[in-house]
Amino acid sequence: MHIEKEKIGIFDSGVGGLTVVKELMSLLPNKPLIYFGDTARTPYGTKSAETIIQYAIEDTEFLIKHGATVIVIACHSVASVATETLKKRFTLPIFEVISPSRELAIKTTKNKNIGLIGTRATVNSNVYNREIAQIAPDIKLFSQPCPLLVPLVEEGWLKSRETRMIIRKYLRPLRDVAIDTLILGCTHYPLLKRVISEIAGKKISIIDPSKEVARDVFEHLKNNGIDNSDLVNIHESQSRFYLSDVSPTTEKIATNFLGRKISIEKAIA
Amino acid sequence: MHIEKEKIGIFDSGVGGLTVVKELMSLLPNKPLIYFGDTARTPYGTKSAETIIQYAIEDTEFLIKHGATVIVIACHSVASVATETLKKRFTLPIFEVISPSRELAIKTTKNKNIGLIGTRATVNSNVYNREIAQIAPDIKLFSQPCPLLVPLVEEGWLKSRETRMIIRKYLRPLRDVAIDTLILGCTHYPLLKRVISEIAGKKISIIDPSKEVARDVFEHLKNNGIDNSDLVNIHESQSRFYLSDVSPTTEKIATNFLGRKISIEKAIA
Repeated sequence: MHIEKEKIGIFDSGVGGLTVVKELMSLLPNKPLIYFGDTARTPYGTKSAETIIQYAIEDTEFLIKHGATVIVIACHSVASVATETLKKRFTLPIFEVISPSRELAIKTTKNKNIGLIGTRATVNSNVYNREIAQIAPDIKLFSQPCPLLVPLVEEGWLKSRETRMIIRKYLRPLRDVAIDTLILGCTHYPLLKRVISEIAGKKISIIDPSKEVARDVFEHLKNNGIDNSDLVNIHESQSRFYLSDVSPTTEKIATNFLGRKISIEKAIA
Repeated sequence: MHIEKEKIGIFDSGVGGLTVVKELMSLLPNKPLIYFGDTARTPYGTKSAETIIQYAIEDTEFLIKHGATVIVIACHSVASVATETLKKRFTLPIFEVISPSRELAIKTTKNKNIGLIGTRATVNSNVYNREIAQIAPDIKLFSQPCPLLVPLVEEGWLKSRETRMIIRKYLRPLRDVAIDTLILGCTHYPLLKRVISEIAGKKISIIDPSKEVARDVFEHLKNNGIDNSDLVNIHESQSRFYLSDVSPTTEKIATNFLGRKISIEKAIA
């Protein structure tokens, strides 16, 4: 009986969270999803914490109203400034992209130098630094804001010469301090994973938070006795995708992110 | 008596419209300004026409409520899709960045090949094409969307190697068709004017809509018998700047745009 009732609600400031959706669909083919991307107010990354928290509350309420029983914050900017507020305000289980990737980074690093790339909001929030300092005070975290990567991904310039140059410029200070582990602190970045990995070099392990949060949700359902073993894929018929602004560009980007065309509905949180 | 009452209201999706403010301050030192930048919902350029029109109405109402007697649409995305709706809905004089620069471009071109660079929304709206086709059907307009230029300006990478490469890539198709006039169809681009001009080459005349709309407002006031001759600069004491989201980054960008520090207040339209 449980299986039918579980509905995973995912939200993001835009279409980036679809990289999380992709991982969830592959791990949990039999759990319907509901996605909300706030494309009318995207990006959140350049906005103040106060504004981001307000939007995150509205986004969560939208997903709950549409039947979500589990919430996934698929946006680093939100996860870094609004997780505590959301967990206090709402009683359903809330997952986010930061904690699982932070834990994996701590386990992975050997030389104790971890790198983080993300939007300015994520980097400035210091959320990774703070928590790593508490759990593993001997580990150093080096952060680099990369505000140009989101527009480069949305342009579809995934392998262009300009994109490579910009990634090289962003990664240089991290390579200079000899990080051995790199967290992709933004849901857009998995689309650049191959190029980032090439430029970073073989010695640097790449951590993809979209994969890690999906694993977290999978484990949670399993630990609560919810059957994940039914491999009948219900996403095409039962999963729903809402964006607060729909344009031909966002539809094209969404298709790029998921690797297939989806039906998008317009809704405001 | 007129002088005291005139208040120029300017709005934009973010801080880009400050390039228009800069020109207005220099042409009209004795006319107080009120600026609204919708940084909480920026950018408009990637959003649908329907959403942009709704935001533009709210922004205009905000300026009127704060005493504006003249409205300047300092945003190409808004000007290209919402001007008609705003002119129908509001009775006060409304100016925008597109018409005066389009007229100047038509006057300037000799070989009848005009180029336009802007956000995707501005280019897709076809507003320049449509009107040029009506006024001067023998002129050809070649458009190039340049969605990476806004984030590059906001990053402050005004002269970097990466920025030059990207501008070169964007301008290549326009140079291939031998344009002799180029409209900077986005209020962020004046900050890149020197680099764009260098890459475009001496044979291409650059049209800066921020300058042109400011001239339009100046002429309107003069033609209505309003004295512009008093050169006492009142902007420091009487002009006001509102943004819907304020962060250290937006404050820094605003300072870059105006060339001096301003006091920013937070307000929602």
